[in-house]
Amino acid sequence: MQTLTVELGDRSYPIYIGSGVLTRENLLLPYISGQQVLIVSNDVVAPLYLEKLQSTLTGKHCDVIVLPDGEHTKTLETLNLIFDQLLRNRHERGTTVIALGGGVTGDMAGFAAAVYQRGVNFIQIPTTLLSQVDSSVGGKTGVNHALGKNMIGAFYQPQCVLADIDVLSTLPLRELQAGLAEVIKYGLLGNAAFFEWLESNMDALLARDADKLAYAVRICCEEKARIVAADEKEGGLRALLNLGHTFGHAIEAAMGYGTWLHGEAVAAGMVMAADLSCRLGWLGSADAARARALIERTGLPVAPPAMMTPHQFMELMSVDKKVQSGRIRFVLMKSIGHAVIESDIPPALLEQTLSAGNSLCC
Amino acid sequence: MQTLTVELGDRSYPIYIGSGVLTRENLLLPYISGQQVLIVSNDVVAPLYLEKLQSTLTGKHCDVIVLPDGEHTKTLETLNLIFDQLLRNRHERGTTVIALGGGVTGDMAGFAAAVYQRGVNFIQIPTTLLSQVDSSVGGKTGVNHALGKNMIGAFYQPQCVLADIDVLSTLPLRELQAGLAEVIKYGLLGNAAFFEWLESNMDALLARDADKLAYAVRICCEEKARIVAADEKEGGLRALLNLGHTFGHAIEAAMGYGTWLHGEAVAAGMVMAADLSCRLGWLGSADAARARALIERTGLPVAPPAMMTPHQFMELMSVDKKVQSGRIRFVLMKSIGHAVIESDIPPALLEQTLSAGNSLCC
Repeated sequence: MQTLTVELGDRSYPIYIGSGVLTRENLLLPYISGQQVLIVSNDVVAPLYLEKLQSTLTGKHCDVIVLPDGEHTKTLETLNLIFDQLLRNRHERGTTVIALGGGVTGDMAGFAAAVYQRGVNFIQIPTTLLSQVDSSVGGKTGVNHALGKNMIGAFYQPQCVLADIDVLSTLPLRELQAGLAEVIKYGLLGNAAFFEWLESNMDALLARDADKLAYAVRICCEEKARIVAADEKEGGLRALLNLGHTFGHAIEAAMGYGTWLHGEAVAAGMVMAADLSCRLGWLGSADAARARALIERTGLPVAPPAMMTPHQFMELMSVDKKVQSGRIRFVLMKSIGHAVIESDIPPALLEQTLSAGNSLCC
Repeated sequence: MQTLTVELGDRSYPIYIGSGVLTRENLLLPYISGQQVLIVSNDVVAPLYLEKLQSTLTGKHCDVIVLPDGEHTKTLETLNLIFDQLLRNRHERGTTVIALGGGVTGDMAGFAAAVYQRGVNFIQIPTTLLSQVDSSVGGKTGVNHALGKNMIGAFYQPQCVLADIDVLSTLPLRELQAGLAEVIKYGLLGNAAFFEWLESNMDALLARDADKLAYAVRICCEEKARIVAADEKEGGLRALLNLGHTFGHAIEAAMGYGTWLHGEAVAAGMVMAADLSCRLGWLGSADAARARALIERTGLPVAPPAMMTPHQFMELMSVDKKVQSGRIRFVLMKSIGHAVIESDIPPALLEQTLSAGNSLCC
């Protein structure tokens, strides 16, 4: 087991990464100050891991809410089901909400914890690769609105995070791949050596080699923890984590949340970002091709949905949270491992990227 | 005009109190950093003051949402109407939400600001006496849930607060009285001299003497600012502000939110707290009678609704946010001006208070 600390002053917290951390006795208990616990899980993860988790919570009063899985459920309405459960079972301010599931579960449970009685304790147990490397680090919580993804939420830090590598063995391949999209993102945005490591080890990761997965999760959490510690509320640096997300969020919104997995949309979005970076003369065409090739080898999409028009992209991107004074801010690449934020993009180049379809980065 | 500062480190903010501060040019503008503003108001206040406010926001892009008035509207559903408006009009992270209305408007607009895009700027312009002396100071925002009042919310501080005494001239008498309940509360919980001042000046306050009202608002804001500065997240001291609220929230919930005004429920709740304090041998019967007498002179209820049973009180109070380890915490009085928190109450005495009806404090 490895332990990382996300350094955020009095809101600092540890991330425990390794095989079997979910069922390790006495790892979780010190982070639960009261007697009450609500486990928020989903109907895919709960049958696999809920009992194991409960068996470690000796002496606590444990309530459970199992939600339907999927990005389309990440709404205020579903959030209200969590509040119903907390209130019906008389959970007090001293309660602890534990998220057992992927990013959707963690985002909703975390936001519920942030606003229930104006804030109760929260623990993240991410069960997908994507949530282990991304959404469980950094305290972003929230739900979607029909007019935009993650538009309603809070910055809210957990007491601790358990990233159990063993649970990735039951992850559907498509979700493993979606998680690897975010893993690749960390290489592209700030760590060229890690990108090269991924080029050498993608087959082992797809074959779920536990040691390789644990290494990848640790590097990604380190990268993210470093960025979040420097910029908790996304004043600047943290926006780099949105590489591929401006395009990706538009894809998710256009297709209906959950049709494309978040990681799949980010994968296509990163290829679009590489393509646009290349057209701007920043990223060499060989590096753009490397980015596309690694994403393609991972089995991820390298083009947006054929049905999406440039106009639709522009409409959807203009409601993104990253818009400032009406200008869309893009995260682009100067080279592999060096991302930058830019909002001053020649419209003609953007139009070319939005219309490139299957010939991105070619 | 008087200026108070609520001292909360980097979240400190000023409260401007006086006649005409709403329409004072250049008072608000320095607190609005971006170009976008959403004014959240209600259908009673907007016809009276919306135009005046808008006329001071020179050069800003101003959207408006006018909500129905009343505690029963303080729900997640109404909150979603604010999000719809923000998103349809493409409000960005740099936007400012301004609450123009009473406590319900301020609580909802503040919570919307706290969670829209994980937090945007917020300004409070409270237009009722109750919101001027209470809900606009201290950063408590939120909405009700069918199973409990203010159960969903955030601690979120505004950029500034404008308390314009002139707007109290159009306040219905019943709401003025409800606000005076909270004014009396500050005397009872921590300022015996102010309680005496209120005994001498209640007639002038009911006649809306502007100077007396400004004085009362300032003292209450000072008292609250002092308490909030010492205990922003209600670890201890801040709970004293809930004098009368444990009983009061139960009354509001039992009658249906909005049937009794919040201040009316708190008024009866304070008489119940005085009565219980008296039965415990803490508050002298003469002081308990003074508390009841001042509340009665203000035209406020001095007994809970006749239809409410002790059992119903116990049920509703046990879901209060102040419950700790299943025990209801009461704010009671050792003397006028000296409130304390106590959860170890002999059930027989509590039962007597809950059954006393019209003979509380007698």
